[in-house]
Amino acid sequence: MPELRKDPVIGRWVIVATDRAKRPTDFSRDHVVVRGGRFCPFCPGNESKTPPEVLAYRQSGAANTPGWNLRVIPNKFPALRVEGELNRVGDGMYDRMTGIGAHEVIIETPDHMQLLSDLPESRIADVFWAFRDRVLDLARDHRLRYIICFKNHGEAAGASLEHTHSQLIALPVVPKRALEELDGSKKYYDFKERCVYCDMIRQEEDDQKRIVVQTDHFIVFCPYASRFPFECCILPRQHSAHFEQTDGPTMQNFGWVVRALLRKLDKTLEHTPYNFMLHTAPVQEGPMPHYHWHMELIPKLTRVAGFEWGTGFHINPTPPEEAAKFLREVGIP
Amino acid sequence: MPELRKDPVIGRWVIVATDRAKRPTDFSRDHVVVRGGRFCPFCPGNESKTPPEVLAYRQSGAANTPGWNLRVIPNKFPALRVEGELNRVGDGMYDRMTGIGAHEVIIETPDHMQLLSDLPESRIADVFWAFRDRVLDLARDHRLRYIICFKNHGEAAGASLEHTHSQLIALPVVPKRALEELDGSKKYYDFKERCVYCDMIRQEEDDQKRIVVQTDHFIVFCPYASRFPFECCILPRQHSAHFEQTDGPTMQNFGWVVRALLRKLDKTLEHTPYNFMLHTAPVQEGPMPHYHWHMELIPKLTRVAGFEWGTGFHINPTPPEEAAKFLREVGIP
Repeated sequence: MPELRKDPVIGRWVIVATDRAKRPTDFSRDHVVVRGGRFCPFCPGNESKTPPEVLAYRQSGAANTPGWNLRVIPNKFPALRVEGELNRVGDGMYDRMTGIGAHEVIIETPDHMQLLSDLPESRIADVFWAFRDRVLDLARDHRLRYIICFKNHGEAAGASLEHTHSQLIALPVVPKRALEELDGSKKYYDFKERCVYCDMIRQEEDDQKRIVVQTDHFIVFCPYASRFPFECCILPRQHSAHFEQTDGPTMQNFGWVVRALLRKLDKTLEHTPYNFMLHTAPVQEGPMPHYHWHMELIPKLTRVAGFEWGTGFHINPTPPEEAAKFLREVGIP
Repeated sequence: MPELRKDPVIGRWVIVATDRAKRPTDFSRDHVVVRGGRFCPFCPGNESKTPPEVLAYRQSGAANTPGWNLRVIPNKFPALRVEGELNRVGDGMYDRMTGIGAHEVIIETPDHMQLLSDLPESRIADVFWAFRDRVLDLARDHRLRYIICFKNHGEAAGASLEHTHSQLIALPVVPKRALEELDGSKKYYDFKERCVYCDMIRQEEDDQKRIVVQTDHFIVFCPYASRFPFECCILPRQHSAHFEQTDGPTMQNFGWVVRALLRKLDKTLEHTPYNFMLHTAPVQEGPMPHYHWHMELIPKLTRVAGFEWGTGFHINPTPPEEAAKFLREVGIP
């Protein structure tokens, strides 16, 4: 009998197929293979082919020359731009505003042939430090209300360049998905006087069956109402609404945890494409007792079709308990 | 300068790229080609290979034999099932219920090599009559609260069988996406005492620039805050919350309008895969002055990636005004 499960934060229902659950090998899937061999604007020596860097972690060299381990540049074809005025206007019955914002690319390593999961934990942590540094800098522009940090890994997951990178987009409005989490967690807090995410940590530790990895700083699990097979949530144990306020030991451990999860996914699903997204509070807001930052990771294994577009429902062919078991048990070096 | 536009019903923002707008030929896209030649359970003569039909429009023959023009069958691998009890239970802090519902397939024509857009308007109208008949029948089961009628056309849009068909799924809850439209249109109605969709008809007629096709019964346009290139909305002029209450002349004209739109899309985008979804009121509800049924049609031209998953925002590389112009101007026989 299939099961309907409800996301405890935003109230979205999903259908979980409990009979004939799909195993990792049941999906026809893309595999990410780095080919190299073509001109790449993200490789060292080609710094002049990108807009000038806004941040770099380097061992040597001047700005926009080789010697960097990580480099942040404005997107050459940005979805939004920092220049100009933020105008909000009516257009008949409709509403629009100018596309003020920022769109930046984090080049995670100078080595074209490396994947994020190939990097040591401290260099993965550097990617998150770079997110933090850029968020803190961009937040000084008070027109920017929300910053999403994310990664598209593999062409099927939306990556247009092969050289491993992640991105951030700063927006002049708080997007719908963030509002849903803020509203849902606020309602839960008003009702229970507890953070729903803190409660999820306790619940997942009691149940154990959806846990993938646990450390002193993080819990990684397949959410109860996962929309997608092998969807994972990385939740810090320490309550904090703002990712950019993460302390050093937690950030270092975040690098370890993401590396462990990516390697487990790579091994279980044979280098399947994926997306990850940081969910954090709006940058101009103060502390929030009800909201708790986290990372969502979605392997690209299924297609979104009419039913999902029409309802917001998803059909998940792999119960999170089974996905977590595969990921928990797979050995990584 | 890119533009941010807000959906007037659910409040979702989209980024519309206004410079370097993508034209139809700029998308690398799949083309739907019907190959045939393999065993097909939807073809006449193979009726015994599917679950018994729940509805058929036939010229001759007994149930579950050839002679039909259109046939509705339960999905052999249903997402939800009618049998069993609807149990709502807590699971620690989480909520779940048994997967009660229905999942049916509408085989639109006996001819394996035909597309929906190849059918004459009255046979396309028959597909919508079949939706109506099945919705009216299923709504007698008061456990079922919402019924979504949709089509996945082409493998890239999620179709798993080639023989042209559409589907319906009946759900024991009103899904999030429907609630958002119901809530958003209710807020607008409370504020203005007018239906937001009726206002959109007037606005689009005033502006003209997003209109694709107009008849006495329908207006077809590319929505102001389209998420996707060439996204279209088909809106009936007559205010009604419930698709299943559509009258004969409107239904017949719906067949004509959908045929015209599909042929325009096929010609402009060279048989690109698409999804369509009927948005209608929950089946157990009475008339609603604030809600207005409509059809949403999304050609599959772009990928959903980390930014979209993380924010609910979309980046649309083709302004709806330009998409509508292409579709309006393309000639169809």
